[in-house]
Amino acid sequence: MTKKHNIILQPSGRRGQVDEGTSIRSAARELGVEIESICAENATCGKCMVLVEAGRFEKYNIESSQENLSPVSTEERAYLERRPKLLKDKGWEIGQVRLSCQAKICGDVLINVPEESRGNKQIVRKSASNREIEVKPAIRKYLVSMSPPTLERPIADWERLAKGLETSMGLVRGGEEKLPRWYDFDIDYACLRTLAKTLRDAKWNVTVTVRNDKEVIAVQAGYHEDSYGAAVDIGSTTVALYLCNLRTGEVLASESEMNPQIVYGEDVMSRIQYAIDQPDGLEKLHKAIISTLNKLIKQAAKSVHVKLDEIHEMVLVGNSTMHHVLLNLHPKDLGLAPFVPTIHKSVDIKARELGLHINPSGNIHILPTIASFVGADTSAVILAEEPHKQDENWLLIDVGTNAELVLGNRKRLVCTSTPTGPALEGAHVEYGMRAAPGAMERVHIDETTLEPKYKVIGVTGWNTDHAEFTGQVKGICGSAIIDSVAELFRAGIVDSRGKFKKDLNSKRVRQGESGWEYVIAWKEETSIGRDIPITQQDVRQIQLAKAALFTAARTLLKRMDLQSPDKIILAGGFGSYIDKEKAMLIGLIPDCELDKVYAVGNAAGDGARIALLNIEKRNEIDAVTRKVERFELPTDPEFQNQFMLATSFPHMSEPFEHIAHLIPNRKADPLAKNFMK
Amino acid sequence: MTKKHNIILQPSGRRGQVDEGTSIRSAARELGVEIESICAENATCGKCMVLVEAGRFEKYNIESSQENLSPVSTEERAYLERRPKLLKDKGWEIGQVRLSCQAKICGDVLINVPEESRGNKQIVRKSASNREIEVKPAIRKYLVSMSPPTLERPIADWERLAKGLETSMGLVRGGEEKLPRWYDFDIDYACLRTLAKTLRDAKWNVTVTVRNDKEVIAVQAGYHEDSYGAAVDIGSTTVALYLCNLRTGEVLASESEMNPQIVYGEDVMSRIQYAIDQPDGLEKLHKAIISTLNKLIKQAAKSVHVKLDEIHEMVLVGNSTMHHVLLNLHPKDLGLAPFVPTIHKSVDIKARELGLHINPSGNIHILPTIASFVGADTSAVILAEEPHKQDENWLLIDVGTNAELVLGNRKRLVCTSTPTGPALEGAHVEYGMRAAPGAMERVHIDETTLEPKYKVIGVTGWNTDHAEFTGQVKGICGSAIIDSVAELFRAGIVDSRGKFKKDLNSKRVRQGESGWEYVIAWKEETSIGRDIPITQQDVRQIQLAKAALFTAARTLLKRMDLQSPDKIILAGGFGSYIDKEKAMLIGLIPDCELDKVYAVGNAAGDGARIALLNIEKRNEIDAVTRKVERFELPTDPEFQNQFMLATSFPHMSEPFEHIAHLIPNRKADPLAKNFMK
Repeated sequence: MTKKHNIILQPSGRRGQVDEGTSIRSAARELGVEIESICAENATCGKCMVLVEAGRFEKYNIESSQENLSPVSTEERAYLERRPKLLKDKGWEIGQVRLSCQAKICGDVLINVPEESRGNKQIVRKSASNREIEVKPAIRKYLVSMSPPTLERPIADWERLAKGLETSMGLVRGGEEKLPRWYDFDIDYACLRTLAKTLRDAKWNVTVTVRNDKEVIAVQAGYHEDSYGAAVDIGSTTVALYLCNLRTGEVLASESEMNPQIVYGEDVMSRIQYAIDQPDGLEKLHKAIISTLNKLIKQAAKSVHVKLDEIHEMVLVGNSTMHHVLLNLHPKDLGLAPFVPTIHKSVDIKARELGLHINPSGNIHILPTIASFVGADTSAVILAEEPHKQDENWLLIDVGTNAELVLGNRKRLVCTSTPTGPALEGAHVEYGMRAAPGAMERVHIDETTLEPKYKVIGVTGWNTDHAEFTGQVKGICGSAIIDSVAELFRAGIVDSRGKFKKDLNSKRVRQGESGWEYVIAWKEETSIGRDIPITQQDVRQIQLAKAALFTAARTLLKRMDLQSPDKIILAGGFGSYIDKEKAMLIGLIPDCELDKVYAVGNAAGDGARIALLNIEKRNEIDAVTRKVERFELPTDPEFQNQFMLATSFPHMSEPFEHIAHLIPNRKADPLAKNFMK
Repeated sequence: MTKKHNIILQPSGRRGQVDEGTSIRSAARELGVEIESICAENATCGKCMVLVEAGRFEKYNIESSQENLSPVSTEERAYLERRPKLLKDKGWEIGQVRLSCQAKICGDVLINVPEESRGNKQIVRKSASNREIEVKPAIRKYLVSMSPPTLERPIADWERLAKGLETSMGLVRGGEEKLPRWYDFDIDYACLRTLAKTLRDAKWNVTVTVRNDKEVIAVQAGYHEDSYGAAVDIGSTTVALYLCNLRTGEVLASESEMNPQIVYGEDVMSRIQYAIDQPDGLEKLHKAIISTLNKLIKQAAKSVHVKLDEIHEMVLVGNSTMHHVLLNLHPKDLGLAPFVPTIHKSVDIKARELGLHINPSGNIHILPTIASFVGADTSAVILAEEPHKQDENWLLIDVGTNAELVLGNRKRLVCTSTPTGPALEGAHVEYGMRAAPGAMERVHIDETTLEPKYKVIGVTGWNTDHAEFTGQVKGICGSAIIDSVAELFRAGIVDSRGKFKKDLNSKRVRQGESGWEYVIAWKEETSIGRDIPITQQDVRQIQLAKAALFTAARTLLKRMDLQSPDKIILAGGFGSYIDKEKAMLIGLIPDCELDKVYAVGNAAGDGARIALLNIEKRNEIDAVTRKVERFELPTDPEFQNQFMLATSFPHMSEPFEHIAHLIPNRKADPLAKNFMK
């Protein structure tokens, strides 16, 4: 009978008995601890390094010693001696640090598996849920060493490689699941075309990149450890790309750029119209985004010295119009009733078919759309925030020119969308501007003096904190517009219908060129040499936007038979900057405990990255989106009525208990009694 | 409880009881009889027509009557009234002929299912085995009718189609196997791009072409019954294309053309060399074959009024060099030791990736290669002849410039190949020519007078049958060359070493310009104004060719521990024209009962057609070729020795009992005693 020895694995504390002669890596797997390996246990990748602790460990009743392992082999020593700096930095010594694929157990040992050697890496994402994301990419690499063909064994290049790959995959992955046989592997055509030359140039030692444990998409001479992928969020305004290491999950570089389609139309409806009106409209829109994507990929890759050919996968998200234009699908029916996308299901397509300049055999995965105005970006937000795994009812709101809303829990999800107009992003507001240096980002109005104070991007503190504050303000960005309107209401400068009161004792409230207005910054404080006011028109814009958003949320709550959500999650840049109390005060979001309102930043981009790093998440979101119930607001009979009522501050039918203390003269408001239940 | 009725199905004789209200088609399926349907039981395709027999059938103890079925529905009547000619031609009447998807059983009936309505069609192929091929293509069509999208149900185009397809496929295929759910279907990207427009133009009634029950590759407005595919055999010399109806299995058109690569080299070795020597050599060879394939497809489609877009699949075969060049894979390593192809496994690739002008979403399937000189054409021959399903040992020989040989049975198959030179095809023979009008195709020499007679392509009977026979012969084709050499030996004009005897009393045996020769046709009989002889050099060419072929066959027999094969199958045009007795006499093929030697014509083309028509055959041949054992002749230690011995007529170590009576002075031959066992 084979002798057995004790092995203890730290930091997990897993322990057990294994046969003499078992490698540490195999022993660890038997005990449920995955240790990395890329080189198919050839002692060349060093991913599986572990530390052997020497001494008596009473707790486990063992005596661990470096002598209880097979001696350091020539290959192992060669590997470690090539890395003196690494050992020195970590304070490790040869003998103490072992390659777990090489070191065999011949006595009791306590082994420390350092973080970097652990398999199934996890990355932590900052979000409402602070979840860990398991790194389980579609793309994996294997080192394959073959014997060259001979007259006696003239088997073809592909079959030789496939057999080698079966062996390597088996060694690296062990018995973790049923792995494919060599004849089940496929090879992408573009990759096949260069296979013969690559194998010979590489002297039959290659790194093979495999997609979905099935398709070989790249063969590189020699040993290559890392694989790269890009996650992209195509917004109507901004395209953001994250270049990731698919093995570690790390974001190596981020790049963003204006969406070049803006020259063909500022919002999705005008771009759809452009595609309808111009014979080559779609082609122009499509080429514009492809060329921007290629530019971003190139910049990102260059910045971290990754070759474009080493980028093997891309995951893209975007609203339904961006999704269609990316795929060169005509967006016409997205903009015309009954508002139907060409496809919901996620799409997989070769990079070369779309003309994206990553490895031509690489896969482009585009997340599913949910409805005409609830796109792949919303799917990504769902994937990032996981309302479908909650017992509570969560309301996800992604605000842009259009707002998408998803409400529900693990049993049921409903969604809708509503145009909110550009006001919430600071556009179409008289002195509105994007969040950039010189933009006001916070506004506060003293309810007694009616004097404002404000914060400007690029300047520390409030304007009033500076002895001399001049010439620095350029305009008002989205968050400050919401602040301003909320403050105007709170300070009693506008009434609950949004109208300026005309009898106030303040030179800031005045009749301007286009009607009544409130001056936030005198021209001396600006760099544009003019007073910067919030106008009646600006207030009206915000009222329309918030009414749309609020009515959409209320409609979903009603469908779910809920009075208010348990949690509100604001996705998108907009949500990160607004003051949630002010947003609730003007009735932009429904009543909810303030500390249950989260801003999660670019959750769509995060969702894209999650889908890039974890293959299982792609099936998950496809399945979830198949079940999401879609509601179109115009088909809701109460929509118009609700919308009109929702234009007031705040929506009076609501409890708004969490901001009640801020609402002036609520009971006295003559409109209050008109509001429906 | 539901009432039951008797149903008898002819001609199969299947019978049973079914529930009242069951359609004839469902009832037939319950009894194991498949009836065709394409329109998902919409009464529009008419594929499921059956005849109702009226009367008392004692044998079954039933009274069958047209009244025992539901009345002819409006749709059914409409369908039948649109086809008065069909009904008249067949002598059928409305009421007697019913659409089995519509007619419901409400009493006992005897139903006749005409051949054209039966599912699982079979086509008979003429071959050594006379097998039936079941038509089970990768491509199937389904009529899908959808309700248009509405504001209440704005589900995307693809999902709407996929759900409709699930329903149609279920109706057409019934419970025959586990069918996919709607969300498991995929759609080809090129097809997706036009989906929205097609569905709307078609008013949501479309015919969907599905590949492998999985991938939608075409969507056509309205109802289309047939699907088309092409099977192609790319020979080094000739490219032959068969356009087939994928539903019926019928060959609609055949087209062939010279392989345009001939200008870059006559045989595969010279084309490989061209690809090695010229920087753009491979590109030129590749483009040449692609453009010829496109020409052949176009001609074939035009001749039967099929649109190129309706051709949804192609299956191609060819030797390994043709295979590599077709796929734009460099053939270099096929021609250099150790002679390795890039890939054995069959390849599937989109038509648009190869630039083949069938439907761009269509699939191109290329059969597996077995070795560097045993290509996809040999795989096709195996598929057509099925040695892997035999208890007997069959020897398959495909002769061209190169000969491929496969030997074995259901347990084991071995293969090899050998260059035979162009002599067997009539090239490199002094007056050799291709089989065309004016070519001698048969030669007989009287052993007493040493006078010849011959047959010429395009002329009836022997030349000696004509009172005046002048000016018609141009040269000698392959079969006549074999005849001539065999007859020279049989008549004692050349000895067993192939040398002309110089002491013969015939003016036809003479010393010519390049050595000794035998004149078959005097110049008066030719159209070229010169005597046409068989020269010593010609005899030598045939000796080398037949020695190569014979040695290869003998090597395989030895590996299988066999003295002789149970059956010899000669594939290719060559095998169809040669006189098998003469071929055995000169030792071209091993000893075997003459009536067990079959010529099966273009078995490679047949194999391509089988793979086109039956998807299961593709997996079968992939699995078979994985197990075929390859032997390279140069690695056989006895090869050179065997080869030298095999140059004599016939190979003296062989029994050759089946042609023994033809061999002159066998025992007296001084060489006989030197031959090994």
